[in-house]
Amino acid sequence: MNSLRVDSDRLWSALMEIGRIGETAAGGSRRLALTAEDGEARHLLCRWAKEAGCSVTVDRLGNIFARREGSDPQAAPVMVGSHLDTVPTGGKFDGILGVIAGLEMIRRLNDQQVATRAPIELVCWTNEEGARFSPMTLGSSVFVGDIALDFALSRQDPSGVTVGEALERIGYAGSSPVGGRKVGTYLELHVEQGPLLKEGGEQIGVVTGSFKALYFVATVKGQAAHVGPTLMEQRSDAMVGAAALTLEIDRIGRSRGRDGRSNAPHIEIYPNVRGVIPAEVRLSCDVRHRDPEEAVQMEAELRAACRKVEQERGVTITLEQYFEFGPVEMDARMTGLVRETADQLGLTHRDILTVASHDAVPMMRLCPTALIFVPSETGISHNETEYSTPAQCAAGADVLLNMALRLAS
Amino acid sequence: MNSLRVDSDRLWSALMEIGRIGETAAGGSRRLALTAEDGEARHLLCRWAKEAGCSVTVDRLGNIFARREGSDPQAAPVMVGSHLDTVPTGGKFDGILGVIAGLEMIRRLNDQQVATRAPIELVCWTNEEGARFSPMTLGSSVFVGDIALDFALSRQDPSGVTVGEALERIGYAGSSPVGGRKVGTYLELHVEQGPLLKEGGEQIGVVTGSFKALYFVATVKGQAAHVGPTLMEQRSDAMVGAAALTLEIDRIGRSRGRDGRSNAPHIEIYPNVRGVIPAEVRLSCDVRHRDPEEAVQMEAELRAACRKVEQERGVTITLEQYFEFGPVEMDARMTGLVRETADQLGLTHRDILTVASHDAVPMMRLCPTALIFVPSETGISHNETEYSTPAQCAAGADVLLNMALRLAS
Repeated sequence: MNSLRVDSDRLWSALMEIGRIGETAAGGSRRLALTAEDGEARHLLCRWAKEAGCSVTVDRLGNIFARREGSDPQAAPVMVGSHLDTVPTGGKFDGILGVIAGLEMIRRLNDQQVATRAPIELVCWTNEEGARFSPMTLGSSVFVGDIALDFALSRQDPSGVTVGEALERIGYAGSSPVGGRKVGTYLELHVEQGPLLKEGGEQIGVVTGSFKALYFVATVKGQAAHVGPTLMEQRSDAMVGAAALTLEIDRIGRSRGRDGRSNAPHIEIYPNVRGVIPAEVRLSCDVRHRDPEEAVQMEAELRAACRKVEQERGVTITLEQYFEFGPVEMDARMTGLVRETADQLGLTHRDILTVASHDAVPMMRLCPTALIFVPSETGISHNETEYSTPAQCAAGADVLLNMALRLAS
Repeated sequence: MNSLRVDSDRLWSALMEIGRIGETAAGGSRRLALTAEDGEARHLLCRWAKEAGCSVTVDRLGNIFARREGSDPQAAPVMVGSHLDTVPTGGKFDGILGVIAGLEMIRRLNDQQVATRAPIELVCWTNEEGARFSPMTLGSSVFVGDIALDFALSRQDPSGVTVGEALERIGYAGSSPVGGRKVGTYLELHVEQGPLLKEGGEQIGVVTGSFKALYFVATVKGQAAHVGPTLMEQRSDAMVGAAALTLEIDRIGRSRGRDGRSNAPHIEIYPNVRGVIPAEVRLSCDVRHRDPEEAVQMEAELRAACRKVEQERGVTITLEQYFEFGPVEMDARMTGLVRETADQLGLTHRDILTVASHDAVPMMRLCPTALIFVPSETGISHNETEYSTPAQCAAGADVLLNMALRLAS
């Protein structure tokens, strides 16, 4: 069987064109979910998909489905996609590559007048990043039934705007139901976002599973008091407690070398004014490990750190878990197919675990799912310098194209 | 000379009545500068002052002056007052006592039909706390010419509302010029906000001067990156750097025992979302000491701490001073008069330094000024449990009344 190849220039050009929407001075994209910029990127995608002959459907949560019909319209579609939203410090590849590679696949099939038996559906999921609205992977999670639609629509951004209101504002509160749509298999191409493929020199990462990740909110309580007359010995400073806990969290991850991660990236402080010793700090934090048992051990260390900080800093801390992810194991037949397709295309590959969740993670509960990584040339993501080369992107898109073609035959 | 005494019940009742505006569940007041609540408290004060026969003037920055005429209208007035705005976690005494004691003084002089030679003016200054708009002591600083009016009117709160807009909204953008008003002497009664008078059992604190305080913004820069795939060894986490610096700042103050203070109470984090390692943190911090040379030494330690944190945490830190306060020395004739008046009233007193600034600090550059403290019964301020007893408040108001009477004769 001859392999098809994507048009690398066209793929790159579309990536760069959509990346100019919300472009930052440092060359990244800032396109938070359901903002005007996200709306503009969605309009462009829909236009491109229609120009490529697809029928476009938007569901009530703004998930976009662009369908290229198959010879058997009753066959379950091969769905490919990812997301167009970014974090505030976003690059041009995270999420976008998976969507634009799906579009390029459809364009290429059109060029070659290839008819597939099963339909191919390109999807763009709403609010994958969770940067504007929490939780993350919102669109795909509702699609698979993990999260209720009403709950999702009522999520608020920091200024109090709900998902439902934001969808109305940009014109993506669609009419079709969320979920219940027939899906045969789901394929997602994504940049690795870490340094491993680049270090190892492999062209394709075959995602076989994930780290285990545990997410918490630590609420540190002290006592509001005047920053001046209050004696140091009188104080219970919630921010000093939160600072001590932040360093403990960082230590817990670092002690695991390359197999562990820990974070405390999001903080809310009350009252956060210059004249008052902080009374309360809410710290979102997480611990992650390749080995699930080690992740549980990290949680135990985090709980011990809370007790230690309470004693040393005179504050009280409560720790509540708000989310958990992994370990997931990808469908073995699908990972086998990724390896086979890469081999057939002459691309080097290695198995890899994902440390972060992706839309593929909810989707794998619905249908056989593959998650395919290409190298991060700079080894960094969620940063404006995030970069993969045209050849790296095209190699991933080639795997996506040929795998979809095989699954849709 | 017989001493007059204030009506303690009436003083307390007015304090409690104004404290119900913006009252919190825990019994404090939340009445940030130029909010609707501040407006309501101002209306009540103006009504009370007019009922007491005063003429009320509001200047362009919302400073309120209520004048009780003297027998010699050309004489420079004795000005008494403080502020009605609070921090978000405010109590019912900080600032309010100085204003309401001034009102009670006027009411008492009316009761007794006492005519003074010099006029008495009660003042309520705008935005003393600096909690909504920075810098603090804004109204008095413009009044004495330390800060330009246009600069003050353009200050923004965190949501972008300017002082000028906020004044218009609550109807306190007055027409009279800020400053240029004749003032003979300025007296301010305030709660101590610390535990010293309560510990020593004295009824009156004679403020003779202040600590030296140095205020900085530390900008900690790291690198935005994904919280998951980014290896711990790859990271430059601005919040980890800011946390380490926060602990160093706390240590610098604590090492000075009761004579030093240090704070890092206000933090801005970017991007502050759960999926991104923080790229930049701006930390407002300060160091204070009774001995100015020690304060300078604390600054040197703070700068050394920045270098240490840079090395240990792989971040970069710049430290910029944005404000300085003290050491100030109060007018010796005025402090002598406070002591004398307390003695005459049979009140115990001690000399004390103020650790925080007050409206009296700008005012002392304009005219002979006295700052008088009464004990904090709970030893705490900027907290809803802030409390002074009716007797403690009345003792301070008695000193204010008799001192003003003497100065206005």
